[in-house]
Amino acid sequence: MNPFRAGGNHYDYLESESGTAMPGEEGNSSIAYQPVANAPSNPRPSRLEFHPEEYNTARRSSSSPSMHLSNKTIVFIAAVIAACVGIALGVIIGWFSSQARMQGMQSDVLKEGDASVGKLLMDEMKADNIKEYLRLFTSTPHLAGTAADKKNADYVRDEWIKYGLKPVRQNAYNVLLSYPDSVKPNRVTVLNSNGTTFSESKTEEPPLDGETIRDDVVKPFNAYAAAGTIENELVYVNYGRVEDFQRLERTLGVNVTGKIAIARYGKIFRGDKVKQAQIFGAIGLILYSDPADYAVGGISSVYPDSWWLPGYGVQRGSLYITGVGGDPLTPGYPSLDGAFREEESSVGLPEIPVQPIGYDDAKIILGELEGDTAPSEWQGGLSGLTYKLGPTLRDNKKVKLEVFNKNVRRSTYNVIGMIPGSVEPDRYVIVGNHRDGWVFGAVDPSSGTAVLMELARSMGKLYKEGRFRPRRSIVFCSWGAEEYSLIGSTEWVEEFAKTLGKRAVAYLNVDISVQGNYTFRAKSTPNLFSAIYEATKQVPDVPLPGHMDTVYDTWAKRKPWSSENPLPYVSNVGSGSDYAAFLGELGISSVDLRYDYNTDLNISSYPLYHSMYETFRLVSEIMDPDFHYHLAVSKVWGELARSLADSVMLPFDCRTYVAHLQGSITTLKTTYAAKMLTKGITFDSIDAGMASLTKAAEELHKYIEGLDSKNPFEVRKINDQLMYMDRAFTDPAGLPGRPLQRHIAFAPSSKDSYYGDAFPGIMDLMFDIENSADPEAQWEAVRKHMSVVAYTLHSVATTLTDVNVLGIQPS
Amino acid sequence: MNPFRAGGNHYDYLESESGTAMPGEEGNSSIAYQPVANAPSNPRPSRLEFHPEEYNTARRSSSSPSMHLSNKTIVFIAAVIAACVGIALGVIIGWFSSQARMQGMQSDVLKEGDASVGKLLMDEMKADNIKEYLRLFTSTPHLAGTAADKKNADYVRDEWIKYGLKPVRQNAYNVLLSYPDSVKPNRVTVLNSNGTTFSESKTEEPPLDGETIRDDVVKPFNAYAAAGTIENELVYVNYGRVEDFQRLERTLGVNVTGKIAIARYGKIFRGDKVKQAQIFGAIGLILYSDPADYAVGGISSVYPDSWWLPGYGVQRGSLYITGVGGDPLTPGYPSLDGAFREEESSVGLPEIPVQPIGYDDAKIILGELEGDTAPSEWQGGLSGLTYKLGPTLRDNKKVKLEVFNKNVRRSTYNVIGMIPGSVEPDRYVIVGNHRDGWVFGAVDPSSGTAVLMELARSMGKLYKEGRFRPRRSIVFCSWGAEEYSLIGSTEWVEEFAKTLGKRAVAYLNVDISVQGNYTFRAKSTPNLFSAIYEATKQVPDVPLPGHMDTVYDTWAKRKPWSSENPLPYVSNVGSGSDYAAFLGELGISSVDLRYDYNTDLNISSYPLYHSMYETFRLVSEIMDPDFHYHLAVSKVWGELARSLADSVMLPFDCRTYVAHLQGSITTLKTTYAAKMLTKGITFDSIDAGMASLTKAAEELHKYIEGLDSKNPFEVRKINDQLMYMDRAFTDPAGLPGRPLQRHIAFAPSSKDSYYGDAFPGIMDLMFDIENSADPEAQWEAVRKHMSVVAYTLHSVATTLTDVNVLGIQPS
Repeated sequence: MNPFRAGGNHYDYLESESGTAMPGEEGNSSIAYQPVANAPSNPRPSRLEFHPEEYNTARRSSSSPSMHLSNKTIVFIAAVIAACVGIALGVIIGWFSSQARMQGMQSDVLKEGDASVGKLLMDEMKADNIKEYLRLFTSTPHLAGTAADKKNADYVRDEWIKYGLKPVRQNAYNVLLSYPDSVKPNRVTVLNSNGTTFSESKTEEPPLDGETIRDDVVKPFNAYAAAGTIENELVYVNYGRVEDFQRLERTLGVNVTGKIAIARYGKIFRGDKVKQAQIFGAIGLILYSDPADYAVGGISSVYPDSWWLPGYGVQRGSLYITGVGGDPLTPGYPSLDGAFREEESSVGLPEIPVQPIGYDDAKIILGELEGDTAPSEWQGGLSGLTYKLGPTLRDNKKVKLEVFNKNVRRSTYNVIGMIPGSVEPDRYVIVGNHRDGWVFGAVDPSSGTAVLMELARSMGKLYKEGRFRPRRSIVFCSWGAEEYSLIGSTEWVEEFAKTLGKRAVAYLNVDISVQGNYTFRAKSTPNLFSAIYEATKQVPDVPLPGHMDTVYDTWAKRKPWSSENPLPYVSNVGSGSDYAAFLGELGISSVDLRYDYNTDLNISSYPLYHSMYETFRLVSEIMDPDFHYHLAVSKVWGELARSLADSVMLPFDCRTYVAHLQGSITTLKTTYAAKMLTKGITFDSIDAGMASLTKAAEELHKYIEGLDSKNPFEVRKINDQLMYMDRAFTDPAGLPGRPLQRHIAFAPSSKDSYYGDAFPGIMDLMFDIENSADPEAQWEAVRKHMSVVAYTLHSVATTLTDVNVLGIQPS
Repeated sequence: MNPFRAGGNHYDYLESESGTAMPGEEGNSSIAYQPVANAPSNPRPSRLEFHPEEYNTARRSSSSPSMHLSNKTIVFIAAVIAACVGIALGVIIGWFSSQARMQGMQSDVLKEGDASVGKLLMDEMKADNIKEYLRLFTSTPHLAGTAADKKNADYVRDEWIKYGLKPVRQNAYNVLLSYPDSVKPNRVTVLNSNGTTFSESKTEEPPLDGETIRDDVVKPFNAYAAAGTIENELVYVNYGRVEDFQRLERTLGVNVTGKIAIARYGKIFRGDKVKQAQIFGAIGLILYSDPADYAVGGISSVYPDSWWLPGYGVQRGSLYITGVGGDPLTPGYPSLDGAFREEESSVGLPEIPVQPIGYDDAKIILGELEGDTAPSEWQGGLSGLTYKLGPTLRDNKKVKLEVFNKNVRRSTYNVIGMIPGSVEPDRYVIVGNHRDGWVFGAVDPSSGTAVLMELARSMGKLYKEGRFRPRRSIVFCSWGAEEYSLIGSTEWVEEFAKTLGKRAVAYLNVDISVQGNYTFRAKSTPNLFSAIYEATKQVPDVPLPGHMDTVYDTWAKRKPWSSENPLPYVSNVGSGSDYAAFLGELGISSVDLRYDYNTDLNISSYPLYHSMYETFRLVSEIMDPDFHYHLAVSKVWGELARSLADSVMLPFDCRTYVAHLQGSITTLKTTYAAKMLTKGITFDSIDAGMASLTKAAEELHKYIEGLDSKNPFEVRKINDQLMYMDRAFTDPAGLPGRPLQRHIAFAPSSKDSYYGDAFPGIMDLMFDIENSADPEAQWEAVRKHMSVVAYTLHSVATTLTDVNVLGIQPS
């Protein structure tokens, strides 16, 4: 099944003379849409009022005299009449002039955002520009902590200044990164029983289509994997999930303690595989990409002919489970100069060597494995191979794993730019994307970076030309070192926690902008579902003549919520990208947008993810030749930001939030209520909390619907209630065992950092509770956390109502 | 030395017919001042503007014609002229009418609070009323968790409804309280070596002036002291401070391990004495009030003749060190029905029996003590007694300590009432006082309760009559169970943490309103120093003819900051009363007001503190016969609340805050910098944080001075910055070892909960660091906390500036 839709012609782009020149810089007049003449003249809503009283008075005064009189009298009468008419006219003129002037003043602060600006903004964005930005950012590898990444950071800063963002700053954090040794390559070797080498894994990805192996292409490795050389038998652990290890130990009778594990990539975050491997006693871990997950189209047609992973392609990636916190050495605090750093040994970095390899190498190794045949659903896609569990290898072979990674402190750079709000500059709508990629990063993240640049250029242009000035500030963020541990964004959130906690309206993330062309995809806190829907309804899915569908239409058609609910599906916010600290540490409502492949493919990521083959060619010739989908994401992102920044009333919907949570609680009940009841634990308090939350949300929106927003303070009050709803879900103590994951309703699963759990504390505590170290203590923790959840729901309800500090108890 | 000023006549009050009738209920017309006729008519500041342009145009149009013309022409000309004049006049009339109307609308939301309302409010308050309220509240004991306290809570609720507060609610929390056994009295016995009784302490305070021993007079005890009967030798530990125990062990060679300790009350919070006694190994603790601390005027003239403590007077009091948290069973969360409760054994309740006694009993016990003579400064005021250290007692006597306290779950009640704000109802100025007292509680807290009632009555009256409607909401709080662990206020703060954290402007506490008549006293976060000064300048110290001094004047004269700084002294906010959770858990700027005795007396509290002799008679005949000082506190409190609720710009001063912190840091440096430097720790980062904070505060106030506040959103933005400054001092992780004490700059000392430390984390960690269990780990903790302090200062600075999320680092 081909995830890409037909009809994608090669894009016939005009190549600029300089390979690195950006569209915003030259040829600006040729690509810039000049909508001034045709643009609606920003009509101010007419608010002149008819005042019948004054008007009638004037008319009565001018009623005609009926008697004949002397000349002088006539002159006098005429004068009086004229004077009266004049006065009346004057009163009307004076009144209305003044009204118009005053309303001009008053409406400045309550003027509804001009939705037509959204159209202007969208028309300003061009697929060509995005393509050229992408070409630039993929022209060299730009790994975090390298000179190339700093050069990009400087470029972004300088461009944004040119675009008119003001102010623009680059800020640096000194953080712990990880690199393979430049001389001694990491390697997986199969040794014969006599110690000679049976096979040796490749240490580099071979060039396949013009890629070159250079010093700045980092060799395949897993960041933060412990350095070490180990040698032992091998156990195949499927995807390395907790359930896989449990099955091995409990059902399949294979103990990984003291052995090296080999797991296929996919399903969950790789760091969680390492975590479980350690828990179950493995001394090292080999990660590989199985064709069943990364070459579903078959290994005969792979990159550069298709988007499927070739045999020596390797997924790089970090192993650090942040639990948010960013830089591993400064959890909860920014990594500024002079800041206290924790000991490396105390912060939960991986304790075992881990190395990723491609499936050609994996086939050789797995081919030597003996032991029981792995369960059928553990059988991967390597042809001609029956997957065995191990631990022995044929002829007493052993596996040797050599990892020479080094953790080093380096500077990473964010670039932050602003379009200051005209009325409420202290309200920030934040858009962000990370800039660092493992190699060329054409999809991750440069497809998003290119879109961010085009968004910044377009908004900056309209702003500079005086055609767009949002009422709230829009903050543009280009993050550093996301790939390691969401570091740049998290350190920034930590540095400015006190300010962002009070002022941020929402964080709108685009990491990868396009990883397929099947349908739009969003992760979001539920209060922003409807705002996302509205934005996607404004954007054509493919800007081709005759193609009338909006992004929304295709999304709703291809990914409806369910058979009963035709709205497009939106997933929970997990921890896969830079929204994690915004939502998890501070409770800032967050959104993540991208264009996606068809999830029916049942793959865990686009196949070339984090390999060297994420190239400009991949994107511009295979994945989105016309850059239609890049452009669509760009427009949705821009329109969403605009609507949040410019609407007088924030387009937040608390009712959807509550309904969504209600669904999650129903699921929790289905799963756990009976088991909990055996310990006397009920959902009663949580139900009561949900009831008051439901009521509060309904009443707030009813109030908003009836609101005659003439009082700016009233508007601000309601907006604060809407905006702070997510804040109220945070608990300073954090989730059980995860003090920096403070959002009680949404957090990454503790079993898979990619996945967003609803009420993750309950999920975590209940998971396999019978087999926990101390079940009674665990049940006590469940009791306590259920109480915290109920309290939190109640808390959120109080923030949605006006006079509420008086308590909800009857007097 | 008499702490009371001369001239206090007995108050010639009109006793109401019913002993419990309140002034607000009956005789209202006789006592209510009716200022309507004389009151200034609430003048709206004139904002009509002169518009020379329109006016000149009108004049030019009416310049006189100079030629002779036909009648028709004349008629025409006259008509034209008249019409023009008319139009001109009309324009002017119309313009100004409209302007006046629009400004009426606009000025509603930016109208400056009418300061003359403060005068109205003050004139409404009457000393007579306060006295009558006090009489009511002291008519029965009203211990937390008793029917009497609930009855008072109902009374307060019902009265507030009558006064016009709206809405008014009573809210309940089910919390852990502690009571002595009703049958088996707690007792301290001296046993002869043969086991017979040598002496036995009194179990009740004898009636001295009309007090009666009733079931509802709780026998002397210390709340939460562990039940138990122990028997052993005795060690005199002076005040039971950490330095006292250290001196005993290190210098005086007396080990308290396994012994009963006897400590005098005073200097520090009694719970900290128990904490240290436990740390040093004592198995029980006897607390007594020494004449040197509680009968400084000599034991010959004591209550009922003076305010000094008689020989069998006993100070009750709780031993629980809250670290905020309120109810011991629900630290950090509200004690609502169904909420999870911690195990009693796990929450840091005292582990040893403790019992308080009077000095007559103490003299008998100490008189039997042998061992070395206590150091001279440990010698107390018991005449004819040389204080020995113990541990032996004459003739091998032993001390037996019997404590039968029980911890029980009871409901406690807050009453919360509101005057909703007209413009910004979601901004709360909160005034509060606790209602529960150990026995009659005439000083603690009913002197404050009486004042709260008069404040509520007066504000309610003006509000009901339409003469006062503050722009922000004023919230009145009557707290339950403060005496146990600041429980009512803390549970409420915890229940509404999310709302209060966003909306509370400040918390203004009055616990005891009058504990002397020497000078006014304030504890406050430094941003409110100037607002307190302003309020005290509006209030006459004593409302007597010819007495011109304001509260401020006397305060400045009697308690100046220093010889260089003539401003009145304000102390740091510790944890002695209900502001603790507001400031400590949420970072809400807090104030505590009272009238004080002369601190040159060097006593730790007014002598009858928490004894049965805190009676109406004590207050009305000895401490404040004219209720002048009660009235003064009432007026200051009301004026401060009014100014915070009604000023368009909040009267917060960040510069004072910064200057105050700078002073504290200088002190810290003097004390610790040299010692820290030996470990390579400097104040450099903290100095940098202070520098940016100083700059930010200066720039904010410069901006405010130049602010033309026509834009309501601009006003709100600045007010938010001012209001949230204290929030930014909070760290979700709390102080080292005290997770719920989240304010980094101010918290109660961990050695004395009464005392407010500046930068308490540094103080705590550095205290006696050489002798800590693991000095190197402790130094590491110092390093980390110094970093957190620097970060926090930096954080606060960012919240004071407008566009700051861009970082302060140079680009």
